[in-house]
Amino acid sequence: MPEKLKPNYIDHISIAVKDIREAEEDFRLTFGWEADGRYSDNDEKINVVYFMIGQTALEIMEDMDGTGEVAKFIDKHGEGIMVFSINVDNTIDSLELLKRNGARLLDQKPRFAKELKRHFAFLHPKQCHGVLAEVIDGKY
Amino acid sequence: MPEKLKPNYIDHISIAVKDIREAEEDFRLTFGWEADGRYSDNDEKINVVYFMIGQTALEIMEDMDGTGEVAKFIDKHGEGIMVFSINVDNTIDSLELLKRNGARLLDQKPRFAKELKRHFAFLHPKQCHGVLAEVIDGKY
Repeated sequence: MPEKLKPNYIDHISIAVKDIREAEEDFRLTFGWEADGRYSDNDEKINVVYFMIGQTALEIMEDMDGTGEVAKFIDKHGEGIMVFSINVDNTIDSLELLKRNGARLLDQKPRFAKELKRHFAFLHPKQCHGVLAEVIDGKY
Repeated sequence: MPEKLKPNYIDHISIAVKDIREAEEDFRLTFGWEADGRYSDNDEKINVVYFMIGQTALEIMEDMDGTGEVAKFIDKHGEGIMVFSINVDNTIDSLELLKRNGARLLDQKPRFAKELKRHFAFLHPKQCHGVLAEVIDGKY
């Protein structure tokens, strides 16, 4: 019997885009939304702008230099939603539970997002039918 | 100046999969989650299973007969997240606002999901960088 991961809410979904300034302007013109925040992550090689929708951040992200995972995703699938992230109480505990369930993981230990000061970890995309699922604790 | 669409929360995200029974079993084994509901929509030609994550439904959906939009999406992009849906107070009012903002839409009038008894409408995927964005009112 698999153990149950207790999800709090969808923390964020992340749309891979080619040009983040163009995408931000498109979201502004379409929905009238101004960005609630922005950050860059040198480890993940991404620039991110996000809009809060209830508790969930709708992120748009571009590859910094065309060599990261976001660029590879766009090459393979086109622009689109690359990540959905599950907010949990504790990333390490959640990762251990997923291991006990036999899940294929990209990360055996949590990554740390320096700018957001949050721990997160990715499952392998093959585990969720092409979707990069993530567990993350803390808040925006 | 674009008018601001007031979003309540992310109503659902929908993962296009080839075989929903296999995908449901994968989610059960990975996360220990049992389905919170399931429905079929003959108009959209989809079979759907969903898991509630806070207020948001994580849907997995398969094409009924290989001729619908979900099958086309998988042919083009592979399995992955096809839809994100924004919960709004009123779908018709939201659609009119989006029209005034000049958004490209798939639907000029709301669609009606018979089984869920809810009104929803799609923006054109080109409007949100390959993502099929939706507005929907009501609740699961």
